[in-house]
Amino acid sequence: MSAPARQQASGLAQLEAVLAAGGPQLAHLLTSTEERLVQIGASHGQELGQHAADTLSAGGKRLRPLVVFLCAGEAAGDGTVSAAVAVELVHMATLVHDDVLDRAPLRRGRATVYKSAGRAAATQTGDFLFSRAFAELASTGSPEAVKTLSDAASALARGELMQRADAWSADVPPERYISRCTLKTARLFEAACRLGAIFGPSANGLNGALECLGSFGEKIGIAFQIFDDVLDVSGPPERTGKHRGTDLLDGTITLPLILARERRPELKDMDLRTAVTNPAEAEGLCERIADTGALTDAREEALTYVQQAKAALDEIDLPARQRRALELVADGVVERYA
Amino acid sequence: MSAPARQQASGLAQLEAVLAAGGPQLAHLLTSTEERLVQIGASHGQELGQHAADTLSAGGKRLRPLVVFLCAGEAAGDGTVSAAVAVELVHMATLVHDDVLDRAPLRRGRATVYKSAGRAAATQTGDFLFSRAFAELASTGSPEAVKTLSDAASALARGELMQRADAWSADVPPERYISRCTLKTARLFEAACRLGAIFGPSANGLNGALECLGSFGEKIGIAFQIFDDVLDVSGPPERTGKHRGTDLLDGTITLPLILARERRPELKDMDLRTAVTNPAEAEGLCERIADTGALTDAREEALTYVQQAKAALDEIDLPARQRRALELVADGVVERYA
Repeated sequence: MSAPARQQASGLAQLEAVLAAGGPQLAHLLTSTEERLVQIGASHGQELGQHAADTLSAGGKRLRPLVVFLCAGEAAGDGTVSAAVAVELVHMATLVHDDVLDRAPLRRGRATVYKSAGRAAATQTGDFLFSRAFAELASTGSPEAVKTLSDAASALARGELMQRADAWSADVPPERYISRCTLKTARLFEAACRLGAIFGPSANGLNGALECLGSFGEKIGIAFQIFDDVLDVSGPPERTGKHRGTDLLDGTITLPLILARERRPELKDMDLRTAVTNPAEAEGLCERIADTGALTDAREEALTYVQQAKAALDEIDLPARQRRALELVADGVVERYA
Repeated sequence: MSAPARQQASGLAQLEAVLAAGGPQLAHLLTSTEERLVQIGASHGQELGQHAADTLSAGGKRLRPLVVFLCAGEAAGDGTVSAAVAVELVHMATLVHDDVLDRAPLRRGRATVYKSAGRAAATQTGDFLFSRAFAELASTGSPEAVKTLSDAASALARGELMQRADAWSADVPPERYISRCTLKTARLFEAACRLGAIFGPSANGLNGALECLGSFGEKIGIAFQIFDDVLDVSGPPERTGKHRGTDLLDGTITLPLILARERRPELKDMDLRTAVTNPAEAEGLCERIADTGALTDAREEALTYVQQAKAALDEIDLPARQRRALELVADGVVERYA
């Protein structure tokens, strides 16, 4: 694995262990993924080239490609890198569109396409990355793979819409929050796992393995999102790279606030729009949420999904090294910055 | 064909003749397309449901599905309706995103998703329609079809970006304008024709027919876009449904202005940003462009592409009725409101 690829992937605390458990092929597959992403960014004309290249090389954890490879296992077929690239392209397309909607100037410490090129260029760069995802996946010759990813992409759009529909609401039940996490985050992890199974050795491709690995992906996706939402409240900013309580300032209702509101009627009655209008007020509310014990409970909830993810692996007969690597990833999604 | 479907398709002046030439199956296929679009809008949750349903039922000419069916011919296979639906979904997704970028309140006389639900919901509705297009096409089991459409969708994003990059420019050569039309409009018509060939009778599916029908689609796409740009300058507003010169107000540089600038140095030196700041000034510039004879020449250019489209059909052996219908469509794209 190249130094930049290693660095980009290092957001996952236990990456080194995962790489070790994943076998010698894994580092090679991740490097191929980086190379292909760069190639896609460079091969579609001057206008898009820079925006797409900037986005694609901006890195990130490449957690979804990693999950594709780990589910495919050591006998991964030819289409596996394309599948990993396609999942990452959909993920990036949605980040680019989110940055437009959030008017976000920075992501991962770099200027967003929105900031550097404007809303039109960013919207179209997102559309471009989206369409490249399906072209990439079509190149594998598997309509099942295309269907898997397009269904996840549709769920993602629904989840984002649901989040904005719930913004500022004082009445989001935990179940609805989990449904939203499932749509906006977990479906794509689930798709990554299913794609791994589709392109893995034939034994993996059996319906049983598809379902089990898909379930594993869904559960780690939910855990990932819950933990991400906990980090927004818990910080620390020097680790997360953003102020505490950015979700609160956006009106995004997440599990820590939902649980805190169940414990403290005065939080339930609070109108976020008027109570949290600046980072200092957001910080103050984060403290109040933490004081209720809601962060601990939300972390517990995330860990429950990690356990469910691992349990899903019991249903199939995986090589010990593959299973160990998947378990490390499951643990990793809730141990970031822990 | 149902009354609403007929009405939606009536933007194409010669539709009745096309339907007659296209055979009894055509009306049925167009009705199935409408039904499937409504079904897709209704089947993905409450949040998206209304936005998607509004968009999908808002109609339009359904010109791209029509072209898919005419290229597939009378022995069209099972996947043809899915292909037509997928092409229309990509077209609609880009319209929804364009409306966000243009902050457009109305399209086809109805409130846009942007206007009724805001930029976030509209961006996500576009993403949703986009992903549904690929799911729909994957259901046909043809990776070639998915690749064809995703390549067209990438071109579309590139073309839109190119248009915005060229905005307000005093120096857009005609060749670059044609390249832009090709990317932003013609590639999707080309894809529609290729998809028709893919799902048509096996003789159509041969490489020769794919290329010829693809070329037909590209040429009518370019003609369509040129003529659309002529209409923006020529009006009349009561037929186009918008003020004359909306492109000029947007800074969009189209063939009529490019040709007029070649003829009148004072137009070349004019800075659109300061010279055209309101509808009255746009109207005035439209008059000046028309006075140069540029509209006539741009129409001629469009007709040249129509002739090239028809000539592309010479290379394959099509049933007379199918060929007649395709020729009517080619004529139709430049005879709107004529």
